[in-house]
Amino acid sequence: MAVRHYTLDFNLSTAVDSASIVPALLSIFHEQELAETIHDTNGHGYLATFVGKNGRLVILRVHSHGLVTIDLQCYEDDNTAQLDNLLNALEKKLKVLLNDNVARIKKLPALVRGAKVDRYWPTADGRLVEYDVDEVVYEEDSAYQNIKILHSQQYGNILVLDGDVNLAESDLAYTQAITGSGKENYAGKEVLILGGGDGGILAELVKQKPKMITMVEIDQKVIDGCKMHMRKTCGNTLDTLRGDCYQILIEDCVPLLKKYVQEGRTFDYVINDLTAIPISTAPEEDSMWEFLRLILDLSIRVLHPKGKYFTQGNSVNLTEALSLYEEQLEKLSCPVEFRKEVVCVPSYLEQWVFYTAWKK
Amino acid sequence: MAVRHYTLDFNLSTAVDSASIVPALLSIFHEQELAETIHDTNGHGYLATFVGKNGRLVILRVHSHGLVTIDLQCYEDDNTAQLDNLLNALEKKLKVLLNDNVARIKKLPALVRGAKVDRYWPTADGRLVEYDVDEVVYEEDSAYQNIKILHSQQYGNILVLDGDVNLAESDLAYTQAITGSGKENYAGKEVLILGGGDGGILAELVKQKPKMITMVEIDQKVIDGCKMHMRKTCGNTLDTLRGDCYQILIEDCVPLLKKYVQEGRTFDYVINDLTAIPISTAPEEDSMWEFLRLILDLSIRVLHPKGKYFTQGNSVNLTEALSLYEEQLEKLSCPVEFRKEVVCVPSYLEQWVFYTAWKK
Repeated sequence: MAVRHYTLDFNLSTAVDSASIVPALLSIFHEQELAETIHDTNGHGYLATFVGKNGRLVILRVHSHGLVTIDLQCYEDDNTAQLDNLLNALEKKLKVLLNDNVARIKKLPALVRGAKVDRYWPTADGRLVEYDVDEVVYEEDSAYQNIKILHSQQYGNILVLDGDVNLAESDLAYTQAITGSGKENYAGKEVLILGGGDGGILAELVKQKPKMITMVEIDQKVIDGCKMHMRKTCGNTLDTLRGDCYQILIEDCVPLLKKYVQEGRTFDYVINDLTAIPISTAPEEDSMWEFLRLILDLSIRVLHPKGKYFTQGNSVNLTEALSLYEEQLEKLSCPVEFRKEVVCVPSYLEQWVFYTAWKK
Repeated sequence: MAVRHYTLDFNLSTAVDSASIVPALLSIFHEQELAETIHDTNGHGYLATFVGKNGRLVILRVHSHGLVTIDLQCYEDDNTAQLDNLLNALEKKLKVLLNDNVARIKKLPALVRGAKVDRYWPTADGRLVEYDVDEVVYEEDSAYQNIKILHSQQYGNILVLDGDVNLAESDLAYTQAITGSGKENYAGKEVLILGGGDGGILAELVKQKPKMITMVEIDQKVIDGCKMHMRKTCGNTLDTLRGDCYQILIEDCVPLLKKYVQEGRTFDYVINDLTAIPISTAPEEDSMWEFLRLILDLSIRVLHPKGKYFTQGNSVNLTEALSLYEEQLEKLSCPVEFRKEVVCVPSYLEQWVFYTAWKK
């Protein structure tokens, strides 16, 4: 059973003495039959905890610098109307007591802790965001990662790999951005997709009748989940590993890229749809960046002289990671030029950078 | 000074007796010189609070149904490395103690409470989301509403009216959706904009050389803020109230719409960009929905028989509000048909519904 955690905070224009507000609040707590403990804070304001009979816990702090914080934790099956009344009574009383001294009142949506279905999937730039997910429709631990597919009312099903939101059924914008924003003509072309297990890129590109798409996805279990639960994204392309103009190889892309380099094979388009930190089956590199550069380098080497390399970058706010990535682009054995684009991918809840690179 | 509030939660596969984990955790708290209080929970699991010398507060609950929750509150100037160490030590110890019994560990980004710049602006469907805002660049209480313009690294400046995110400089998608998604030709047309004080619609439409745009915005202070801080949205259109092909009227749209109806004046396009719950200066209606319908009805009455009415609806998740809105569309004095579209507006962090209506 989950815990609902309410917060109610008052920013004050000037600090107040707790004695001027606490006694009037205590009567509210006592009405609720909450057992009170006043704590010694060593001069850091007033702190009292109140424990109720049904698992309720209230924490009242009157900080010494003009902030009053109230926490209310209760079980999810607790009486919501009663809790709303309690919070409203506290808010109303504090408004009266503090009168013109209130700079801001903030009551956030309750944090739901320990729920069966977790709704909090922080952004890449580390912000707390709550999704409207109501069901885990697929969950597997593969040899490579934890795979979840979550149902969201507004985004459709969302693929989450090791806790990172990868792609939702709403996210055609991602697929468009990583295939050249509709400005490319794939008809008759040779295409290599690295990763792409959700099938989104494959499903969009087969519509354009390319000569052949080779998709290299390491994790069969991603494909298994997506072909069942992300059909708005992959259509029927993942139902078989081989179609009219595509083949799906379930393997690590690094040895394959090396083989292609040796064979002198080239592609008109290489689309790197690996996760932000790709999986390595045989790490021969010193660091994540070395590994990223290895894949980049191999990808550019199998790129036709007039070909294009597309990839996702990172959150637009992770400027340091983006700079490091661009440094890798400068260090390749075959010199490239690149451009970037900032795109809104609906389910990401943050702006995302995509790169296009080509041989100089 | 803000309070940082960390949470660390363990979902267990089976409930545990607090005696099997608490003693080992206590040693961690004692190392930190935290003063311990054990509370009587009336059979609702184990609850202890720990108060530190620098305003730190830790709450440890071993719930009786297989959930362990830890809260850590501290001041924002507290030693982050020390706090990370404390949380990591607790997490590590709990992992060892609980061994194979852990179904999920969740450590959320810290909630920052009482900060000078508030980063939490919940979505219309009531979800907790944190924005990357770092500055309040404009704040005014007008006769009608609280107006804030917040700076976001990724969205540019964001206009927030009475706590609702209205539009950010990144949100051309909003303006495109509410002007017909690029499928309309405004050249030589008569256009009426209701609201629109951020200037986004005006700035986009003047580019198309309409005959005349009349924009009716009630709140001069919205215009004052946006013309200074939302220039990526409004360009220079708000610098004067009258341009080559537009005029901005600072007044309540309802009396004006009534006058237009009386005069028999019509427009090729009516774009209702009022806030979700519009401001009424002279409420003559029973309810918010009556007022919405009044504006809708007047808008359709001033619409040319071949004209189009565009408006924003609501969060796609607020299905009840959307249905009620569509009911109003059925009740107008002049019958209309309508269609709707779901659009991703970058700064909204939720999918948004837009409506187009036209006379039957």
